Amino acid sequence: MSIDDAVPIAESSRLGGAQSAGLVRPQAFTFAEPPNEMELECGQRLGPVTLAYETYGQLSPQRDNAVLIVHALSGDAHAAGWHSPDDKKPGWWDIVIGPGKPFDTNRYFVISSNIIGGCKGSTGPSSTNPRTGRPWGLAFPMVTISDMVRAQKALVEHLGVRRLLSLSGGSMGGFQVLEWAVRYPECVASAIPIATSARLSAQGIALNEVGRQAIMADPNWAGGDYYGREPPKAGLAIARMIGHITYLSDQQMHAKFGRRLQDRQSFGYDFKTEFQVESYLRYQGDSFVRRFDANSYLYISKSMDYFDLPARRGSLVQAFEGVRAEFLVISISSDWLYPTYQSKEIVKALKANLVPTTFVELQSDYGHDAFLLPNAQLNDAVSGFLANVLRRVRGGGHGGQGRANGA
Amino acid sequence: MSIDDAVPIAESSRLGGAQSAGLVRPQAFTFAEPPNEMELECGQRLGPVTLAYETYGQLSPQRDNAVLIVHALSGDAHAAGWHSPDDKKPGWWDIVIGPGKPFDTNRYFVISSNIIGGCKGSTGPSSTNPRTGRPWGLAFPMVTISDMVRAQKALVEHLGVRRLLSLSGGSMGGFQVLEWAVRYPECVASAIPIATSARLSAQGIALNEVGRQAIMADPNWAGGDYYGREPPKAGLAIARMIGHITYLSDQQMHAKFGRRLQDRQSFGYDFKTEFQVESYLRYQGDSFVRRFDANSYLYISKSMDYFDLPARRGSLVQAFEGVRAEFLVISISSDWLYPTYQSKEIVKALKANLVPTTFVELQSDYGHDAFLLPNAQLNDAVSGFLANVLRRVRGGGHGGQGRANGA
Repeated sequence: MSIDDAVPIAESSRLGGAQSAGLVRPQAFTFAEPPNEMELECGQRLGPVTLAYETYGQLSPQRDNAVLIVHALSGDAHAAGWHSPDDKKPGWWDIVIGPGKPFDTNRYFVISSNIIGGCKGSTGPSSTNPRTGRPWGLAFPMVTISDMVRAQKALVEHLGVRRLLSLSGGSMGGFQVLEWAVRYPECVASAIPIATSARLSAQGIALNEVGRQAIMADPNWAGGDYYGREPPKAGLAIARMIGHITYLSDQQMHAKFGRRLQDRQSFGYDFKTEFQVESYLRYQGDSFVRRFDANSYLYISKSMDYFDLPARRGSLVQAFEGVRAEFLVISISSDWLYPTYQSKEIVKALKANLVPTTFVELQSDYGHDAFLLPNAQLNDAVSGFLANVLRRVRGGGHGGQGRANGA
Repeated sequence: MSIDDAVPIAESSRLGGAQSAGLVRPQAFTFAEPPNEMELECGQRLGPVTLAYETYGQLSPQRDNAVLIVHALSGDAHAAGWHSPDDKKPGWWDIVIGPGKPFDTNRYFVISSNIIGGCKGSTGPSSTNPRTGRPWGLAFPMVTISDMVRAQKALVEHLGVRRLLSLSGGSMGGFQVLEWAVRYPECVASAIPIATSARLSAQGIALNEVGRQAIMADPNWAGGDYYGREPPKAGLAIARMIGHITYLSDQQMHAKFGRRLQDRQSFGYDFKTEFQVESYLRYQGDSFVRRFDANSYLYISKSMDYFDLPARRGSLVQAFEGVRAEFLVISISSDWLYPTYQSKEIVKALKANLVPTTFVELQSDYGHDAFLLPNAQLNDAVSGFLANVLRRVRGGGHGGQGRANGA
């Protein structure tokens, strides 16, 4: 096991003032060195495995205040703070992670983990295949949400944490949250899945598939063997544009863009960009291809398609049978990609197992991505829930103590 | 004006039994021969213009029973009956057009018109540019919903009809219905827009734009100059797949496909087709490219983007000021592409103008495409509405007679 990390730096910084996690350092943890490769759900073996991560705040002497943050399809480990004073933006969930914020780094030791299969410092299809010395490409084995979570478990143990106080993530991050709670019940005191589902819907699979088809139809994709050459930018941009439409609500698109024209007064009657919403989408597509690997998009979207907790044990109620965490389940009223009814299915199955569960539907017009935007309802729900869990854990009980027929 | 049509044939046939419009013949009407070209909304001129159409039933001696059917993005003039006894399918709206059906060909003279810009027998980008003797490609002028409707007006006049008893269409067909009622108020006794809107939403523009991007990113598109060569099949298939996802509801996709696998028992952990919904989408994409021209997809989708009745006159209420038709406005409860609230905006603006308006929300889980499926609520609403309109028209009054302050 090689270690490429040290005590995390979370320097106090004037960046973002007292509310900022400050300057933070990207870290990486490598394990599963051959011959001790990780055995993946698909049956193949993978090693060594590197996982990019960051931490914010300090682990308590009792090691009971760790909160794991897991991200969505296109996310990375940089969830809070700044990498340099010159950064234009802080981490992707900086609005809720930091001193005095809901994931309060004065109280909690926040770990933000990347995923295997990704392209943000963790082992994925753009990493070097040790057998060939060249990028894996499509020779990279298929990874699943379970595989991602098993790698995160190794990271969390490496950081000296046996039991997470909580973990949270939205969208595909919610898949990881649910997988953690089911796979490692003794290691999860509480869980906060947001804007997610216990399995990807047919519509979700369909949307992912069209994005993949767009990537694979790009001649530059070249069967996934494009590293060192021009990548399949056009295809990946289209996949991203499709995604972006699903992340916003109809109402929000109307409020944000309406039918306003971009840099022109009247219709051009041509196929150039005319409407602001077109310009926005093209910008989102173009900027995404500069920061994301097309093969990782294929692998990660496929891992989402495979996610199906109910199928694992016959039903979602049965899948949750061993769960010992208490839950805060959060949905978004205008989310049509992971509609509220899918969160309610989770809540119902948890309650059928007498798992202490709080459900909050955020009232927001911002669609699926609303959890990434400032929201007082989200802040209040998370901070209150975490404070209660910490109190109960320190009171000597377990997250599962509230269960009438706890194991 | 050249005429490539004769008395329509609607032979009684055993195809589909007594309920079928029987064997029907594709027809075409050509007008705007140079130098009398049609002046388009974009400012360019187009001619000659050919419009494909079909008719079912007989025009009454009083010429007061004509009903125009207009189609959606990928439709054609073949709305009912059969072209040959060997056809596998009847016309696209055969469920509601025929003897004894809601658009009862024993009572009404049904005209089904194609659109300019299309690729189904009407003048469009795949037609021959008379100036070059080669297909137009992207040199074809941009056409709008208004242009389509103005061409249809020439067809209707050519068929000897001065005033339509009614006209109906869903989705983009609904755009044409609204345009007709606003542009030719004296020629429309009643109108039945279905699953539509008075303007395309930002979300609708966004979805169209991604489809266009997919087509234009296909190297075979070649700037639109692909005729006689390999067409941009991959790009067009992706555009169609995106469209298909929007035509179904989440619920319907779940009911129809769920997470079932296609021709396999367990996950393959590869990028081949695994789920039934993927197989369905690929099939829809592949079959579409055999019957549709990619450039027509670009032009027609763009005509949808431009459609904006409220902007025409400052508000939708003002846009409807001159309307003399009575309305049956129909939406679908599970339609997220043209949600019910958009139909209600139409109803509200019509009622503000004291236009007699009936509103029906079809209760259906089938999403936007539900109007193409058998639906008793749709049948009852249409047949009752049409019978009343015919009775009023023959009673000597006008469709607009119910208006308290009729013009």
